[in-house]
Amino acid sequence: MEFVTGIKEKETLELSGLLAEGMAGNTVKVNGAVHTIRDMGNVAFIILRKREGLVQCVFEEENINFCLKDLKEADTVEVTGTLTDSEKAPGGVEIRLSEIKILSEPVDPMPLAIAKWKLNTSLEARLNYRPISLRNLRERAKFKIQEGIVRGFRDFLYREGFTEIHTPKIGAKSAEGGANVFKLDYFHRPAILQQSPQFYKQMMVGVYDRVFETAPVFRAEKHNTKRHLNEYTSLDFEMGYIDGFEDIMAMETGFLQYTMKLLEKEYKRELQILETELPKTDRIPAVRFDEIKRLVSERYERKTKAPFDLEPEEEVLISRYAKEEWDADFVFVTHYPSKKRPFYAMDDPDDTAFTLSFDLLFRGMEITTGGQRIHDYHELLKKMEARGMAAEGMEQYLSAFRYGMPPHGGLGIGMERLTMKLMGEDNVRETTLFPRDLSRLEP
Amino acid sequence: MEFVTGIKEKETLELSGLLAEGMAGNTVKVNGAVHTIRDMGNVAFIILRKREGLVQCVFEEENINFCLKDLKEADTVEVTGTLTDSEKAPGGVEIRLSEIKILSEPVDPMPLAIAKWKLNTSLEARLNYRPISLRNLRERAKFKIQEGIVRGFRDFLYREGFTEIHTPKIGAKSAEGGANVFKLDYFHRPAILQQSPQFYKQMMVGVYDRVFETAPVFRAEKHNTKRHLNEYTSLDFEMGYIDGFEDIMAMETGFLQYTMKLLEKEYKRELQILETELPKTDRIPAVRFDEIKRLVSERYERKTKAPFDLEPEEEVLISRYAKEEWDADFVFVTHYPSKKRPFYAMDDPDDTAFTLSFDLLFRGMEITTGGQRIHDYHELLKKMEARGMAAEGMEQYLSAFRYGMPPHGGLGIGMERLTMKLMGEDNVRETTLFPRDLSRLEP
Repeated sequence: MEFVTGIKEKETLELSGLLAEGMAGNTVKVNGAVHTIRDMGNVAFIILRKREGLVQCVFEEENINFCLKDLKEADTVEVTGTLTDSEKAPGGVEIRLSEIKILSEPVDPMPLAIAKWKLNTSLEARLNYRPISLRNLRERAKFKIQEGIVRGFRDFLYREGFTEIHTPKIGAKSAEGGANVFKLDYFHRPAILQQSPQFYKQMMVGVYDRVFETAPVFRAEKHNTKRHLNEYTSLDFEMGYIDGFEDIMAMETGFLQYTMKLLEKEYKRELQILETELPKTDRIPAVRFDEIKRLVSERYERKTKAPFDLEPEEEVLISRYAKEEWDADFVFVTHYPSKKRPFYAMDDPDDTAFTLSFDLLFRGMEITTGGQRIHDYHELLKKMEARGMAAEGMEQYLSAFRYGMPPHGGLGIGMERLTMKLMGEDNVRETTLFPRDLSRLEP
Repeated sequence: MEFVTGIKEKETLELSGLLAEGMAGNTVKVNGAVHTIRDMGNVAFIILRKREGLVQCVFEEENINFCLKDLKEADTVEVTGTLTDSEKAPGGVEIRLSEIKILSEPVDPMPLAIAKWKLNTSLEARLNYRPISLRNLRERAKFKIQEGIVRGFRDFLYREGFTEIHTPKIGAKSAEGGANVFKLDYFHRPAILQQSPQFYKQMMVGVYDRVFETAPVFRAEKHNTKRHLNEYTSLDFEMGYIDGFEDIMAMETGFLQYTMKLLEKEYKRELQILETELPKTDRIPAVRFDEIKRLVSERYERKTKAPFDLEPEEEVLISRYAKEEWDADFVFVTHYPSKKRPFYAMDDPDDTAFTLSFDLLFRGMEITTGGQRIHDYHELLKKMEARGMAAEGMEQYLSAFRYGMPPHGGLGIGMERLTMKLMGEDNVRETTLFPRDLSRLEP
């Protein structure tokens, strides 16, 4: 029997330890993966990949009892040497090696040149070799920034009094209904994968006033586009006691402001690697659906084909308009037509053809849908009836309203899409760790 | 067009605003749900439920132009009144009402007496009415503490250099294999729901060195017990460059230490409501599987029936032993028999009948399984062969090893079980927001 008392400091240093003040001249021990080897004849540079970046090691035969030929890319090693200032090395320091210990070895040469600054490989190949292609510094930086986005979402909402919830993904009935749900057999009963935590987060507003969830959602849509996934991570929140759907837009703006600051502060390295310019979030224009449709149609001389929805091309033009007119990267489009919104959306009492809801567009693409929901039981039933929906199977959802619910609203943000637009990528698969689409189920 | 510039302060106050220094005597505005009404004849107490707790409002007919009969439990309201110090009120203040505005109304009387301190209702009824029963202060406090556990897990791991990942739940192949997987039709291809993010987090160790995920997992096990769920939230991490599986146990101990401090600091209110005593985490005993089995069998004169596994009753006795012997609430059981561990577990080189792995027991129940994994490609293939496993369908996983992986290990923690044991509950459904089991698919 022994006691475990918590984490102990390791002898091996991370990058931040190497870069600490006054470290030069010390003997240091470091582990990492051999990212690349540059053999210059009399000297070789061994570049180690660590979680915080690269470390340059200098291999000089006379200083070390190790044969360079015994080392190859993708070995993982523990090395010892003298830390030396070096202007040319990444971070300004390098390690003059005195010892190399091999921890593990690959069995084949790398299928992709991951040590290159940009992977000149098709998206298809990069996805097929995802666990390998992500070892490229630029590729992995994208998902580090994605971490920052989700972290910002949670930390901002904790601060604003939201409670995090974990709702089931297997259910008897889908929140949004429709044919686009994955079906499965649940111990000989029909079940579905939830398309959204919508019903659950609404029910939980009656408990915690403000709730959020960051979790996978599943959509069996047969789209094969650059913007659709069949499984994605949805950043959802729902809040009670609102004065209007403007409160939801204000909360989302607050989240974006908080998160851009967090990225600037804690993810500087990755932003630099990707040369990402963070968007402005100090003021986000909000403009009515019918108004912006008209404005865009006039300015760009383009007739709209879908009067009740936005076409992808229109989303691009609206963002272009917002950039030209208001120097804005984001734009809220408000008051969507009722017929294109789900039954739980609250209609505008001034004109029930429209809803008290919005989309947020970011650099030409919808990344959020949100709005105020109906909170009155009778009103909810009435709208369901008007749409020919059965209350059957929805009893649990409806019972929350039967027993009283505050005025409330919320939104869902597509994590991968927000990352994609932030990175300036043009395919959502670029910013999805392991995408699921019509043809891709692996890795 | 208008600009949204971020969140604005509301006129209505939250509980912390009411309890701020020097607020007494002020006219305040507060919203909330009518938790209960105590009509004393000449005066009535209206208790509002808010996210941070209860607020007592004093209704005196002479001060207000409102008929008490128009108010009922589960109404949501906005009230105005004078904040007054009151020793008997929760928090030491109450609001003497001058105005009541009803925001929303229920259509039926409450099916459960949620305002009671303890809900004297069967678990079954509480689960059937989950969105309602959670409005009870004690019930909802459990899931607030659950939030703190997950938050502690993430924040501790961020600090330790881990990267958060989001891996797909729909897959072509399960990490652990076996019959206990849910199957679904994925655009006319067979697919499964992942039982664990095991393969993905291992692959990502080759990218980020240290990764974690907090996400749902799915197990089609036909157990109907107090400790099994068919869908639960798994707190998973995986870390590279370890010196042994002891590093994993040390990291878990660090997480527990960090999280208990976080709960003490930020979740004091909920701990008080539930009268929860936090467990000691300063030192956690770690004892070998074969040794503790023998010790427990001797002390409690109980013959073991399953030589290669722990029976639930044995887990209880081991925890009892750890409490008696070392005054410990947690106990690591190490070196599990190889035949009960998955193929990727690393065998102990000193005796390959055992593995370099562990379970963590907490107050009589396994809440974590973890250990060191095989990182060598050939060794992995050899173990798969020895078990008669086909490499087919595992190419993607194996390719990460083919191209080099550091020594690594990790663990998975059952979020609901950890919460359950922390709360002293005896059924995991008590600490699962919306449980999924053999018979329950709703709400």
